[in-house]
Amino acid sequence: MNSLHSGADYKYRQVEQAITGRIETGELLPGSKLPSLRQISSSLRVSLSTATHAYEEMERKGIIESRPRSGYYVRGEFRRIPTPSRSNPAPLEPSLVNKGTLIRTALETVGNDDLLPLGVVCPGRELLPYKRLARILSSVIKTHSDRILDYQPIAGNKELRRQIAFRSIDCGSDISPEEMIITTGAMEALYIALRILTRPGDMVLIQSPTYYCFLQLLETLGLRAVEIPSCPVNGISPADIRHAVDTFDISACILSPNFNNPDGSLLPDERKKEVVSLLAKKNIPLVEDDVYGEIYFGQHRPRTFKSYDRNGGVVLCSSFSKTIAPGYRVGWLAPGRFMEKAMEIKATTNVACVSPTQIAMAQYLREAHYDRHLRKLRQSIKDQTDLMRAEIGRSFPKETRVSNPQGGSVLWVELPEGCDGVDLFFRAREKEIGIVPGSVFSPREAYTGFIRLSTGALWSDEIREGIRTLGKMTAGEI
Amino acid sequence: MNSLHSGADYKYRQVEQAITGRIETGELLPGSKLPSLRQISSSLRVSLSTATHAYEEMERKGIIESRPRSGYYVRGEFRRIPTPSRSNPAPLEPSLVNKGTLIRTALETVGNDDLLPLGVVCPGRELLPYKRLARILSSVIKTHSDRILDYQPIAGNKELRRQIAFRSIDCGSDISPEEMIITTGAMEALYIALRILTRPGDMVLIQSPTYYCFLQLLETLGLRAVEIPSCPVNGISPADIRHAVDTFDISACILSPNFNNPDGSLLPDERKKEVVSLLAKKNIPLVEDDVYGEIYFGQHRPRTFKSYDRNGGVVLCSSFSKTIAPGYRVGWLAPGRFMEKAMEIKATTNVACVSPTQIAMAQYLREAHYDRHLRKLRQSIKDQTDLMRAEIGRSFPKETRVSNPQGGSVLWVELPEGCDGVDLFFRAREKEIGIVPGSVFSPREAYTGFIRLSTGALWSDEIREGIRTLGKMTAGEI
Repeated sequence: MNSLHSGADYKYRQVEQAITGRIETGELLPGSKLPSLRQISSSLRVSLSTATHAYEEMERKGIIESRPRSGYYVRGEFRRIPTPSRSNPAPLEPSLVNKGTLIRTALETVGNDDLLPLGVVCPGRELLPYKRLARILSSVIKTHSDRILDYQPIAGNKELRRQIAFRSIDCGSDISPEEMIITTGAMEALYIALRILTRPGDMVLIQSPTYYCFLQLLETLGLRAVEIPSCPVNGISPADIRHAVDTFDISACILSPNFNNPDGSLLPDERKKEVVSLLAKKNIPLVEDDVYGEIYFGQHRPRTFKSYDRNGGVVLCSSFSKTIAPGYRVGWLAPGRFMEKAMEIKATTNVACVSPTQIAMAQYLREAHYDRHLRKLRQSIKDQTDLMRAEIGRSFPKETRVSNPQGGSVLWVELPEGCDGVDLFFRAREKEIGIVPGSVFSPREAYTGFIRLSTGALWSDEIREGIRTLGKMTAGEI
Repeated sequence: MNSLHSGADYKYRQVEQAITGRIETGELLPGSKLPSLRQISSSLRVSLSTATHAYEEMERKGIIESRPRSGYYVRGEFRRIPTPSRSNPAPLEPSLVNKGTLIRTALETVGNDDLLPLGVVCPGRELLPYKRLARILSSVIKTHSDRILDYQPIAGNKELRRQIAFRSIDCGSDISPEEMIITTGAMEALYIALRILTRPGDMVLIQSPTYYCFLQLLETLGLRAVEIPSCPVNGISPADIRHAVDTFDISACILSPNFNNPDGSLLPDERKKEVVSLLAKKNIPLVEDDVYGEIYFGQHRPRTFKSYDRNGGVVLCSSFSKTIAPGYRVGWLAPGRFMEKAMEIKATTNVACVSPTQIAMAQYLREAHYDRHLRKLRQSIKDQTDLMRAEIGRSFPKETRVSNPQGGSVLWVELPEGCDGVDLFFRAREKEIGIVPGSVFSPREAYTGFIRLSTGALWSDEIREGIRTLGKMTAGEI
């Protein structure tokens, strides 16, 4: 599962993508014979061993099957899984958010250890570098037993900021340690951003669907949401943003360009540039959520909005919660030109973040373990995502549509017409399966026929069985 | 310094208090002979060894001196130090807080390691149980290397809440683990309380002087402050509160009944009861800051407002930052009848607190080290406070007035007329001495002639020298 990422690795995935692409477009139908290993190695210019590796992987994932002395075939039950359509254009009307109760119920399920973890969007424990982190934290405690009891600066541990700043170059940004505040997870960064930029009653532009905790935050701050539709492939359209900001007095935008939770969409880099530029012209601050930016399945890390920011109007929020250590609660904020105000909000919210975990995280990054860990993590989550998509293809009614994300760790599932996500959520919970109903991802009555499944947990028989059970429930068989 | 707290210990302090009391009232003048050990042991009904111990301690602190073959005398330069008067009755007018810049400047000094630590209100590192905490955190990491990476519940680690609930019985409260939320320090508890109870523009009743971070919080939340005067001995008067809530539409009160920072005042328990009852009748929520409640110099832990709460209107905020581990940032909130709303604010601010430090703190409390540590800490801070008061008595101009707190870890110093606290603050900083100017403790132009000195640091020659330098500056000698 945790196959090492290398040049050869990319090549075998290229083969896999070529084949699954043809299956999904219907070019290769269930039961049809695949090109021979020799043919594919020649047509895609890969070695025979790479082609063999790719076919073996696809067989393991249940996409194809080998028949003795005959070759490889598309599995009978494997079928093209359409992606959910772009959400209905939202009626452009600001809405006060009032989904608290449903969101709270969903959240309780997400944090419930007794349930199959298809609700919580965190990598399974086995995928996290817990041994190395434990070793580093222990050594930090030994070396600095007295210093770890001191307060850290309001902006956060300086070495940690230096390490994060150093990494920011990878995503095209170039943030200095002085332009950054360490926060208790990305959520605190988002919260500080909205405290800086808005007052109760203000309108905030969000993409639809969007992460329910953002909606909860808007609700507690008394803000109104203006939704623009997000397409599960390409995310939001700059034209929609332009229309919305021309129509309403928008105080700030919150967007997740890199693998939006829940639809998994990736906003193309040229669109990012366009969005940043049009909002800068209107002088509207853009709050960017980049928590999934490092979990990309392609060859390159997608850029951030921040990397196109020229006037400090982009407020970047991120964290290590989805990649290293959810419980360490280490996030950060690069508030652009709003630094002074951000420092005041941080100081009056909780003064400073916890010391030992900040120091340990700085040490982890300094020891340069992160990149190797990320390569393994991306591969694992990509595999888990493929396996889950394939299993949904086999187990759910054929009208089901599933997103095909290029990163992140969720699947956005559109159920067949007439199926209700909230109903499925409660029925699944009875069977000890945790999922999140689509309704919580919009302040309006939307996505009632959707669910979100997390692909963060290590693939297992229990998870396969859970997906099958969900499929039967959806089909009305149980 | 860290003499063990015991019955005998109390007795010697009783002797000490009796003598210093007579010195302070002028009954015993500088140079006058003290009662003999035999006389004092008989009149106060303590053993001869206790009386001897008390005299030796007072000699060590520079209050008295022994003359060979003659007995003990009040030291020539020791004199009665008057306590600052109750603040001028504030003009009862709500004021928008706007002290941000001065407070920020003061805060930078507080966190500056290069300065003599008379500004920061935390016990010196040597007084904190850092070795034991390091051992416990290490063992938690070893035992739960994977689990410490998980999120904790929104309300916080259950065992930690259980331990804090168990301790709450000591201060007369009886809070269950389900009535409590773990926060990132007491400041986050205060912040959550005000987010629950107020909207921008609302009026909040505070005592004057009050902790400047509260003022900063009011400022960032756009709240107006209504000040009622606090007396350095007995704190606020219920009559003043009654008058204020009859005059203004107060949304919430923030009070620090136990050793208010900066004036060190202790509100007598019967007044606490009266305040809780009168606010309950008016249905005005009371936010209680109890971070210094455990650092009492007397025999009993003072009660909390919360212990008199009958209708859930008291919101208790506290932390371990002033007693165990500032950098762990473990605080808590007991929001009374506002639990549901408080959980929403916590969830949307930063979801949950850091895991490893919560688990370690729970283990520390479970192992029952806290009480023994507190006994030593109280004694150390009491000693440091006595020593600093005595040194101020010797080094500052005789018109200086100094609080005589019965707990907490600050001294509130009223400078001779014409001396400016902000001026002294900047001059002290040049000599690498960190103090806090009085002006930051009120939204109005008040306390310009005051400074606050922290007594948290272990007494040392450097600190004695620092106090002497401050005294000379105040006297205009340097």
